Amino acid sequence: MSSNRPSLPKGTRDFSPIEMVRRNYIFDTIKKVYKKYGFQQIETPAMENLSTLVGTGGDESDKLIFKILNSGDYLAKADEKALQEKNANGLTKSIAEKALHYDLTVPFARYVVQNQNEITFPFRRFQIQPVWRADRPQRGRYREFYQCDADIIGSDSLLNEVDLIKIIDDVFTELFQGKLNYTVSVNNRKILQGIVESVGLQDKLEAIVVAIDKFDKIGNKGVIDELVRLGINLNDCHELMRLILPKPVRETELEKIQYLNQQIKNTINGQKGIDELEFVFEKLQQLGLKTANVIFDPTLARGLGYYTGTIIEVKVDNFPSICGGGRYDDLTGKFGLKDVSGVGISFGADRIYDVLLDNNLYPEFEGDSTQVLFVNFGEKEQDYCLPLLFQLRNEDINAEIYPDVRAKLKKQMTFANNKNINYVVLVGSDEMNSGKLTVKNMKTGEQYAFTIEELIQELKK
Amino acid sequence: MSSNRPSLPKGTRDFSPIEMVRRNYIFDTIKKVYKKYGFQQIETPAMENLSTLVGTGGDESDKLIFKILNSGDYLAKADEKALQEKNANGLTKSIAEKALHYDLTVPFARYVVQNQNEITFPFRRFQIQPVWRADRPQRGRYREFYQCDADIIGSDSLLNEVDLIKIIDDVFTELFQGKLNYTVSVNNRKILQGIVESVGLQDKLEAIVVAIDKFDKIGNKGVIDELVRLGINLNDCHELMRLILPKPVRETELEKIQYLNQQIKNTINGQKGIDELEFVFEKLQQLGLKTANVIFDPTLARGLGYYTGTIIEVKVDNFPSICGGGRYDDLTGKFGLKDVSGVGISFGADRIYDVLLDNNLYPEFEGDSTQVLFVNFGEKEQDYCLPLLFQLRNEDINAEIYPDVRAKLKKQMTFANNKNINYVVLVGSDEMNSGKLTVKNMKTGEQYAFTIEELIQELKK
Repeated sequence: MSSNRPSLPKGTRDFSPIEMVRRNYIFDTIKKVYKKYGFQQIETPAMENLSTLVGTGGDESDKLIFKILNSGDYLAKADEKALQEKNANGLTKSIAEKALHYDLTVPFARYVVQNQNEITFPFRRFQIQPVWRADRPQRGRYREFYQCDADIIGSDSLLNEVDLIKIIDDVFTELFQGKLNYTVSVNNRKILQGIVESVGLQDKLEAIVVAIDKFDKIGNKGVIDELVRLGINLNDCHELMRLILPKPVRETELEKIQYLNQQIKNTINGQKGIDELEFVFEKLQQLGLKTANVIFDPTLARGLGYYTGTIIEVKVDNFPSICGGGRYDDLTGKFGLKDVSGVGISFGADRIYDVLLDNNLYPEFEGDSTQVLFVNFGEKEQDYCLPLLFQLRNEDINAEIYPDVRAKLKKQMTFANNKNINYVVLVGSDEMNSGKLTVKNMKTGEQYAFTIEELIQELKK
Repeated sequence: MSSNRPSLPKGTRDFSPIEMVRRNYIFDTIKKVYKKYGFQQIETPAMENLSTLVGTGGDESDKLIFKILNSGDYLAKADEKALQEKNANGLTKSIAEKALHYDLTVPFARYVVQNQNEITFPFRRFQIQPVWRADRPQRGRYREFYQCDADIIGSDSLLNEVDLIKIIDDVFTELFQGKLNYTVSVNNRKILQGIVESVGLQDKLEAIVVAIDKFDKIGNKGVIDELVRLGINLNDCHELMRLILPKPVRETELEKIQYLNQQIKNTINGQKGIDELEFVFEKLQQLGLKTANVIFDPTLARGLGYYTGTIIEVKVDNFPSICGGGRYDDLTGKFGLKDVSGVGISFGADRIYDVLLDNNLYPEFEGDSTQVLFVNFGEKEQDYCLPLLFQLRNEDINAEIYPDVRAKLKKQMTFANNKNINYVVLVGSDEMNSGKLTVKNMKTGEQYAFTIEELIQELKK
């Protein structure tokens, strides 16, 4: 074996113990809330058939898929013509039948269709797993990252939308502890449709949605430039922008919705979108929110093609979206199950991680790592300490003994410090004679003489 | 999009909600015990550089690695000669730079070397993640499955071995609840070395270990046949087998060790192995075990090349190994960090899953899914129930309302049944007038009239 400076593939990361504790805190919080709302966890494999994944999210998505080389002599079945022409694109299908999923929504759609006879609908499922994208890595964008999805499938009730927004409220109330402002923007694809229709531009709907989606980044003028490039005349552009950015600003979200309603009520889609949105905002008003600032944002478009109703996005200052989702009417159609409506959200755990870190919002994680270290002064002392160590462990106290008899005290204390251990137990001949252990609180520096029972009591406080 | 009957790649699986609850129960149990012994969690990416993974576990392991096709025009940098010759093996390196890890030990070794300046040694880490192997799928063997590893690296103290065996004892005491026998077989590679040396066959050590490793499957005669095929004369074969299968059977494990000691004490390795094993068994005897039957098994060899000291394997009847591990002296050497000793174990979650299922050992998982369903009788009733629903959720009670106003009662009750919901709340005009909810216990069939506060009290019992 040759010596080999180790490294990781671009866009991938290791997670150290402290990072894992923080990440688990985020996952556990989201999980607990999902369960409170009746969602059940599933998992799907990392690998799917390539044919399951391609052609679902569009050409751009297909390029982001990591393909897995077939095992064995994969060239035996390779596409001869593509091989001759060195046409990588044409060759792929014949040498890579499997791929890594790039989101959790497509595998979920596949799961639902495959298990439709066992599932009781409406099905509330959540799923927390890594996904892989062959994206260009940059700050905050990785090639392997976690998604935390919740979807309700098989129900077109808008109460599901209300639940999802309340979930967002619950999760960020807990994670942000009221110390950080965040905005939940809500819109409805049908309203965007209505707006576009009311200007008579329905044949350009998709391209207009893509342009509006960039509003956040390129602003009013940028969007108009894009629209003009689509061949839309300047009058229509301004009319579109007037509807999307209604002025004067109304007092409440419901007033904003009502104002827009006046403008687009002559379109069937617009009217439907308004009704749906109104229901959601009315219910939220009745039920109240803990910390979420939920607004109606007609500029919210969300790129993904499959949304057909409500769309949701959560933002905090200086960060890209930390949660998003929406309603889709035909996600399972590709797999042969038509007309099943669903709605879902996805928390971006990696970005939430950064938000909490930047804003110093992690709690102290005490009980999660070792609480007690027995210093090891030699074989006799070690033999005395071992049964005490296991007494602590049997009381569900995280404890260890320094394993090497010959290690210097200083090294052992440094070990305890680096590992953030709260209590160090020092046992020499005095302690063995008296049965009173010398216990040092590493935070305060105080020392105590405790029997093992007294130590257990102290730790259980 | 074409309609497409969905399926999964061979050897991969979905996990349904009930399967996830059971799996999480296993993971959580193992995690809790690992933490009790001072282990800290890390995660490494699914994708590693192919060069990190190859040449670590031998040629056979290399074939099991799933390689990931480079993104973009991967043929541009393809090995021209291998392409011409249609030599798949030769081509791979030039078109697939990344791969999926096939175990958690090699990524851990890479992690340790890469982060050696940040890590405080001895480092107790645990890691619970899926691994991928291009193995032929069969019952109980998957291409994507979970490993639950714990290793201590940077300490050659045998107390670490003692801790690992106590961990096994704790985990299976909890999972099997004393209702299932299991055996923890322990051996030491140095004892195998000593045995082989004492017969004068040290130059054939590796091949002999491979043969002995099959003892479980092919028995005494089978192993002798294999040894003869290695060119070992029949006398030496019988001498080897006499040492590996010492008779008469001794009373205690320590006596068995002492008996073998007489036979191989003239070899340095044998003597060292005996001393190590003796220490471990003595400490276990002093500390006691809860349910584990720990035996010294000189036939235990464990295939993997990198073990150098203690080896451990856990079995229950009718199943392949459910946990295994051992000590290795130079795992990080490949990555440039020499002479770092480590010892670890790995629980096979997928097999433990099957063992618990076959033996009916799963507890009832009540609190984990929805506890209360509000039946939806119409819009007025829905509006009455919604604030009550959120009152329950704010008390951390998992609850939901059937989202569709027009669904028949029968359908809603079937939903509650299928989802294993404990309590169903029925609210009509009577209930709205009196404030007393009709609550049905779905297990007993009993009905109660509860205020929401009384219901909360009942659920918190």
